[in-house]
Amino acid sequence: MRASSKLFIPAILFLSAGWFAGLHFAAGQNEGAAAIKGWKRGVGWGWIWGRDDEVGSLNAMTDQSRAGSLKLATQGKVYDLGISYSRRSYKWPGHSPGEIISFRSPGGIGAQKEAVVDAKLNPSRTRWHSNALFINDSVATQIDGLGHITAGDDQHWYNGFKEADWGGDFGILKCDTVSIPPIVARGVLLDIAAARNVDELPAHYGISPADVDAALMRQNTKLQPGDVVLIRTGTLRHWGSDGDNHAKLGEHDSAGITLDTAKYLVEQHGAMLIASDTSGLEVNPAPAGSDSFIPVHKYLLVEQGVHIGEFHYLEDLARDKIYEFCYVCAVNKISGAVAGFTLRPLALK
Amino acid sequence: MRASSKLFIPAILFLSAGWFAGLHFAAGQNEGAAAIKGWKRGVGWGWIWGRDDEVGSLNAMTDQSRAGSLKLATQGKVYDLGISYSRRSYKWPGHSPGEIISFRSPGGIGAQKEAVVDAKLNPSRTRWHSNALFINDSVATQIDGLGHITAGDDQHWYNGFKEADWGGDFGILKCDTVSIPPIVARGVLLDIAAARNVDELPAHYGISPADVDAALMRQNTKLQPGDVVLIRTGTLRHWGSDGDNHAKLGEHDSAGITLDTAKYLVEQHGAMLIASDTSGLEVNPAPAGSDSFIPVHKYLLVEQGVHIGEFHYLEDLARDKIYEFCYVCAVNKISGAVAGFTLRPLALK
Amino acid sequence: MRASSKLFIPAILFLSAGWFAGLHFAAGQNEGAAAIKGWKRGVGWGWIWGRDDEVGSLNAMTDQSRAGSLKLATQGKVYDLGISYSRRSYKWPGHSPGEIISFRSPGGIGAQKEAVVDAKLNPSRTRWHSNALFINDSVATQIDGLGHITAGDDQHWYNGFKEADWGGDFGILKCDTVSIPPIVARGVLLDIAAARNVDELPAHYGISPADVDAALMRQNTKLQPGDVVLIRTGTLRHWGSDGDNHAKLGEHDSAGITLDTAKYLVEQHGAMLIASDTSGLEVNPAPAGSDSFIPVHKYLLVEQGVHIGEFHYLEDLARDKIYEFCYVCAVNKISGAVAGFTLRPLALK
Amino acid sequence: MRASSKLFIPAILFLSAGWFAGLHFAAGQNEGAAAIKGWKRGVGWGWIWGRDDEVGSLNAMTDQSRAGSLKLATQGKVYDLGISYSRRSYKWPGHSPGEIISFRSPGGIGAQKEAVVDAKLNPSRTRWHSNALFINDSVATQIDGLGHITAGDDQHWYNGFKEADWGGDFGILKCDTVSIPPIVARGVLLDIAAARNVDELPAHYGISPADVDAALMRQNTKLQPGDVVLIRTGTLRHWGSDGDNHAKLGEHDSAGITLDTAKYLVEQHGAMLIASDTSGLEVNPAPAGSDSFIPVHKYLLVEQGVHIGEFHYLEDLARDKIYEFCYVCAVNKISGAVAGFTLRPLALK
Repeated sequence: MRASSKLFIPAILFLSAGWFAGLHFAAGQNEGAAAIKGWKRGVGWGWIWGRDDEVGSLNAMTDQSRAGSLKLATQGKVYDLGISYSRRSYKWPGHSPGEIISFRSPGGIGAQKEAVVDAKLNPSRTRWHSNALFINDSVATQIDGLGHITAGDDQHWYNGFKEADWGGDFGILKCDTVSIPPIVARGVLLDIAAARNVDELPAHYGISPADVDAALMRQNTKLQPGDVVLIRTGTLRHWGSDGDNHAKLGEHDSAGITLDTAKYLVEQHGAMLIASDTSGLEVNPAPAGSDSFIPVHKYLLVEQGVHIGEFHYLEDLARDKIYEFCYVCAVNKISGAVAGFTLRPLALK
Repeated sequence: MRASSKLFIPAILFLSAGWFAGLHFAAGQNEGAAAIKGWKRGVGWGWIWGRDDEVGSLNAMTDQSRAGSLKLATQGKVYDLGISYSRRSYKWPGHSPGEIISFRSPGGIGAQKEAVVDAKLNPSRTRWHSNALFINDSVATQIDGLGHITAGDDQHWYNGFKEADWGGDFGILKCDTVSIPPIVARGVLLDIAAARNVDELPAHYGISPADVDAALMRQNTKLQPGDVVLIRTGTLRHWGSDGDNHAKLGEHDSAGITLDTAKYLVEQHGAMLIASDTSGLEVNPAPAGSDSFIPVHKYLLVEQGVHIGEFHYLEDLARDKIYEFCYVCAVNKISGAVAGFTLRPLALK
Repeated sequence: MRASSKLFIPAILFLSAGWFAGLHFAAGQNEGAAAIKGWKRGVGWGWIWGRDDEVGSLNAMTDQSRAGSLKLATQGKVYDLGISYSRRSYKWPGHSPGEIISFRSPGGIGAQKEAVVDAKLNPSRTRWHSNALFINDSVATQIDGLGHITAGDDQHWYNGFKEADWGGDFGILKCDTVSIPPIVARGVLLDIAAARNVDELPAHYGISPADVDAALMRQNTKLQPGDVVLIRTGTLRHWGSDGDNHAKLGEHDSAGITLDTAKYLVEQHGAMLIASDTSGLEVNPAPAGSDSFIPVHKYLLVEQGVHIGEFHYLEDLARDKIYEFCYVCAVNKISGAVAGFTLRPLALK
Repeated sequence: MRASSKLFIPAILFLSAGWFAGLHFAAGQNEGAAAIKGWKRGVGWGWIWGRDDEVGSLNAMTDQSRAGSLKLATQGKVYDLGISYSRRSYKWPGHSPGEIISFRSPGGIGAQKEAVVDAKLNPSRTRWHSNALFINDSVATQIDGLGHITAGDDQHWYNGFKEADWGGDFGILKCDTVSIPPIVARGVLLDIAAARNVDELPAHYGISPADVDAALMRQNTKLQPGDVVLIRTGTLRHWGSDGDNHAKLGEHDSAGITLDTAKYLVEQHGAMLIASDTSGLEVNPAPAGSDSFIPVHKYLLVEQGVHIGEFHYLEDLARDKIYEFCYVCAVNKISGAVAGFTLRPLALK
């Protein structure tokens, strides 16, 4: 809120119908002739990978693209983009609560007096810890799968998979997280908060295409088709050890990209995955007149087949001014899960 | 069992008291002068990193070591070492069962008639999937944390942390998985099954130091201090889509390394992490006279501070004869968890 | 199986089309002029209680009927009809597994070092136990609610409530267990095993109307409209402390009533609730030609609005030859739950 | 708070050291010569039932006492003393959250395409609902078991059972709810709010022995040894459909009995079980100088072996001025559970 007087007003003027066309050309110059599987400028990705496809834009990865991104990691530095999750952690209220519960413990095993381990075979009294987790598959650092969101009365998700056919009791039967391949790609940080000269974006701030351009210019970074684009709002400055400051996090968590910006990144720049340091990537609430309460999710996941990253911790990268790196993330391999959760994506430099 | 006639009998003859001393010298030649933080030949690692340390041998990683390992990944190939987990998956019976449960669903959200989303702001009827998981933190592809196992009447784990002080209700308060740093290191596959010329090792087969040497010789591979060593028994040939063949998996899952082999890998070769394609790494049951029902766990986790990897899928690496690569794994970042679970470690080549 | 040679063969001969008609008359004589709300001989109950009704035949209870049943309890004896449930207990495989997990414990509270309780205000170091349960709402001693079962492509349950309208994410929105009133009624035990002169009925034994009559005659008992009818197979002789003998329980658990018997009890005798000492009341598998894999459930719950009781422990009543008593049961009051579970119905005498 | 001006000030004057002695005599007159197993005036109950006992004061129930209490139920009226529990319900923050989750559903079973039910044997397409519950054993209407609370550094509960011996991983191994017998006893409502002429007691109001006497006098009721005593604060006027008004409930929920009152009821009047319409029975916070943050729990459960009832819904009884009745409650039969939960105790009149 206090930062709003610093808004770079002229940038907003670009938000006209003709603006995309102009940028189109400039972007083309930036990105040269880099060819990438599937993507078309002005169109993005979409349902182009075959009627059984569950992978979406991540199909664009090749040995060549991965090898190229790994060349960005020459120093052996690793940035951990995950945040620590506990029972107290802030999350979107539409998900279930979480508990990490000591299931087996050295004391309990002793009291239980059970025959799992014969005492005679265990003179050192070796015992074990094991936890039962009651946890939601959409908490802490996440990659949203392409089945996370449905649209329309037929309740379809990416590639037309419908709830009546593929919405099982044990999670979803198409586009679960098992179908998300390991992601190894060029990552680019867009430090929007820094470009706006604030510690963190104010509540409900909608990140515009002009904000993207301002960050690219400030950082002297160029986007390339196939990039993993990481958007920094600064919200996770307030995560602390486990995200228990719900009031503060909730305030800034409402900043995020607009639908125009999602389209700009995908259709003009070829973003393969878009992530941010908030729980939902997009500005909340959706602007009046949106066709959905979460139009960016609907556009990226359902229409474009572009995965979304959430709650990526970008503070260390921003502090060290690391804007280009090799992004590596492999989601939990759980049948039916709709999102990778409690992840640690890595930025290798 | 049926494979036992193929056992390479002479190898067993090496298992004498004098054998280690001889190997010591040979290993020294193999590994040259490579210095690595903390490790001493003949001793291994241990409680050497300070009284508050929760990291163990993984402290040996440096920018230099990581950069070196990343140079092994020149082709952009990625091997996914994770197995898919479902409610039906085989697991150790000492852990809790698992359910992936559709928590929010497009149909249920409609019937629930709740006010989370105002219908007027959602003309596209965008809805969402979210799953509640009841899951154990020690299932599917795992990295055991250093607090997984306790020993003695004071119920202590690595570095002397005691249950009475640090065994909380919400998991453990020292050496939880949050404290496990991202692992980027040279990985080496030891294909023991191939060295023994079997599809998979027979039930209860104890992998000896001689088996390790035979595999190294067959592969023409050399171990280096700081390696992630992956031991292939072939058990996961039977995982299928989600590990529902409990009888077959249970049979071969009982093959694994002996305590001698664990000591050989750590004290003579400097293994920083030892993993296999079984649920428990070590041969089961423990040999008669062991001081624990799981002596390898006690030795590696409690005494040496060496993490254990379990249920790593090594079939693709074995098929392609990839024995040296960059191993990358980042465990779930969950406070109190004793192990990373449902992981996808990556072998980059 | 071994008991099958003892079957009272002539009883089976009664199972002809004309048999019901004959019994109709006899039953009418037995029951005299007892009027009860809603029930019609030859028809039973059904969707007669109004379009919003969620209670079904239990609407028949009145102050008068309850007072009458309480008069059966003159001695102050209480029979506990519940069985003990644990993580090991036998259950139908279509339900989720169960864990009782020590959530808060004196030791864990100490280690957790949390501020819930100020040590200065707690010199006696009072601490507490609290368990987290992961449990299914259809385990151990149960009363099935009227929304437990759906039929047809519109997935409707009792009174025409449809899944699309009332099948929420948090259980069902019509006919959940909150809508089941406390049950206080005359209870009658039908000891079928005793009537057949066996310890327990053999596997897959279908209890016929003639078996019912034989038991009534042997016991010199008469049924009245509005009764809670308890059918003893003897299966729970094998429950032990917590039902861990799955093989033995699974064998006899398959005995139960046929659809003819359900109709006989409801349409000729006015049973208000039918319970047994098995997990599913009805014979399993359903006879060839049934229109459902569980035709008795479909008939009682969906069509007649008659609740079903399961896993009622009837051994003590049978031993003491108590055939008529006051049955009292009040199910858990959980919104959305489809069944009362881990109950202790009482037989007061 | 607003009600505090109505406090009956003179009552407080009775709270002197000499008051108990005077009341002692009066109480003796009230209760006549009624003998009851185990109880001694001035002492109460205690660890008197044998070193293995897990039942406590409920041992006092006999066929005779139950038959006597059942004679109070002549009209066939049933009062349901349970409150409805949902995921939104108010609870003590030291317990785990709750979810009722649709585990199997007609639509999900169809999408899952599984072989549990052969479609050919199920032409009516009968399907089922089953819920998975993640729930705490100390929520909604409860009976606290005698192992709920521990005291001292040896962490012992009733009868000296110690955590090191009996505190298992799967709940407690002594005094779990399986050991709580069905309760059938004379119940007496003490409407303290009515006696104080308020709708509900103000926050943090400590109910004194004089309040008890004032209620007895107003109601013209007499207590007898072996009674279930129900204390009404009026808090549950605000429960509504499922207790989602946490602010309002939290305010009044802090009213409750003092330790003096607990002692008065047990030692002078022979209460066998004390319950109220709050989550914790006792005034919160405990008065300065208490030896525990919950001294009434420690006294009743640990020292006296008297069970505690919580969140009993007393509004209907109060409205109808029913002060004496037959109380019937049978807790869930779950091994290891420390409390009965989501119960429906009944008041039969």
